Amino acid sequence: MALISLADIRDAHRVVSRIVIRTPILPLKFCDRPQTYVKCENLQRAGAFKIRGAYNKISRLPRSCRGVVAASSGNHAQAVALAAKLRGIPARIFMPSWSLLLKAKGARALGAKVIRGGRNSEVIRLRAERVVAQRGYTMIPSFNDPQIIAGQGTVGLEILQDLPEVQAVIVQIGGGGLASGIATALKNSKPRVKVFGVEPRGAPTMSRSLRKGKLVTMPKTDTIADGLKPVRVGELTFEHVRKYVDEVVLVSDAEILAATRHLILKEKLVVEPSGAATFAAVQSGKIKLPRGPVVVILSGGNADLKNIL
Amino acid sequence: MALISLADIRDAHRVVSRIVIRTPILPLKFCDRPQTYVKCENLQRAGAFKIRGAYNKISRLPRSCRGVVAASSGNHAQAVALAAKLRGIPARIFMPSWSLLLKAKGARALGAKVIRGGRNSEVIRLRAERVVAQRGYTMIPSFNDPQIIAGQGTVGLEILQDLPEVQAVIVQIGGGGLASGIATALKNSKPRVKVFGVEPRGAPTMSRSLRKGKLVTMPKTDTIADGLKPVRVGELTFEHVRKYVDEVVLVSDAEILAATRHLILKEKLVVEPSGAATFAAVQSGKIKLPRGPVVVILSGGNADLKNIL
Repeated sequence: MALISLADIRDAHRVVSRIVIRTPILPLKFCDRPQTYVKCENLQRAGAFKIRGAYNKISRLPRSCRGVVAASSGNHAQAVALAAKLRGIPARIFMPSWSLLLKAKGARALGAKVIRGGRNSEVIRLRAERVVAQRGYTMIPSFNDPQIIAGQGTVGLEILQDLPEVQAVIVQIGGGGLASGIATALKNSKPRVKVFGVEPRGAPTMSRSLRKGKLVTMPKTDTIADGLKPVRVGELTFEHVRKYVDEVVLVSDAEILAATRHLILKEKLVVEPSGAATFAAVQSGKIKLPRGPVVVILSGGNADLKNIL
Repeated sequence: MALISLADIRDAHRVVSRIVIRTPILPLKFCDRPQTYVKCENLQRAGAFKIRGAYNKISRLPRSCRGVVAASSGNHAQAVALAAKLRGIPARIFMPSWSLLLKAKGARALGAKVIRGGRNSEVIRLRAERVVAQRGYTMIPSFNDPQIIAGQGTVGLEILQDLPEVQAVIVQIGGGGLASGIATALKNSKPRVKVFGVEPRGAPTMSRSLRKGKLVTMPKTDTIADGLKPVRVGELTFEHVRKYVDEVVLVSDAEILAATRHLILKEKLVVEPSGAATFAAVQSGKIKLPRGPVVVILSGGNADLKNIL
């Protein structure tokens, strides 16, 4: 299977940097480990890194494109809605029944038609496929796509440019698009930089697949990190993570919630549980980090604060 | 009265940049006015800009200094505690009875002795003076001091360096230290940049003083913006604001609360009401802004979120 290249990511950066925010890399003030930085994709447009991949793909669609369709628990939904709006085409989004209302509202506010219902990522993906067949819309996968992965990889390029002395990056894994993109950018630029993946203990989809050496479909996943719940990762993301990510660790929901609260209350950064799972791994000592500057990805900020605080 | 100079602020920057975070300037995503940026001092160490002035002053104290004392509603308290800790000297802080518990706890966690009680800024200032007389500690004024003003002015220098095309800056006024420092930095570098001050309608201490042409002591101030409540501004800050600030506008508590919520929920930035008062003035159309990039100061993030959301 052909993996994406550093050139693909550089090309994506030329495209997406026209519209994304170059999010800051900030030092954590309340972390026992010195030189621990966060890359603030929670401050990104539509509240998460997802706009990078979505815009990279949608802006390149042919003129003949009639519309786009996506299946997502929320952040990809908002990103597709925003990218479609910027492109001036309609978007239809399928979200699972348990998705956060605020994420559905966010996508609707951006002009997308949002249909909520279905118990997991596979169910809504099949519904989205039907729209492709019936209406000729283009499917925008939430992770298993070269242009999506290349777009998410631009986070890695920005880290290398803004903090060239970085020694390790910690990235959350849901479907694996962000981890695939970042790891590809880093390992093809500075192979000695370590890349650690983090999954919720209740959704160890990539870990299981890595252990089995092939894609695994989980019967069920359950975690507070609603963005990291896919029951199956992608063929493409699996191959990128297998090749480029040094280690994948698991964190509990209690650790994720504590990390989320800490980042909001002490560091003054609004993050969602999926966004804080990486910091949970650092805070709970799950990762043996090298010395020197490390970057923890805060992937999104679309949190339902009343349920978290 | 001798005002501080641009050279004083540059000198302060050499000192404080060793320990402060160079906070990011970010574009607002959900603001009707394009090119509206925020300078995120809510992400500063100890959660507010105050460390700049406190460290500038405390790091220059003679070796013979036995300790420092301050009177503050909270953010200056935490800044003095942090700067004293970095310097290795004791700190004693007087806070009014209505000060936020989380700010008192923050100062205590940094090793300061905190005494809470007293109905306003003047009452606690007098108590702090007594410690100066009895123990030989050095008073660290919260705003009316050249080194404090010069330290806060470093925010202005960073804006000029990081966004040189800035056309206007909007800054909150409590005692006036931040506004004095920023306005001095800007007007002595690029006189055409506009500087707007913002006060709560329930604490229009600087506005009244400007109108009268002399310092006014308010019988009482009342606002949700706990950091902007002094009943009297300083002689020094009054003179700087009178000379350098173009206009001071007032915002209501309802406008401040709406702005605070908006920044937290939409922009994903944890700000306190005092920190959001500036954005309240923009959001409610109180200021006639020039075209081009404007910077809204978010002065602090020490918010009691449960009471705000």
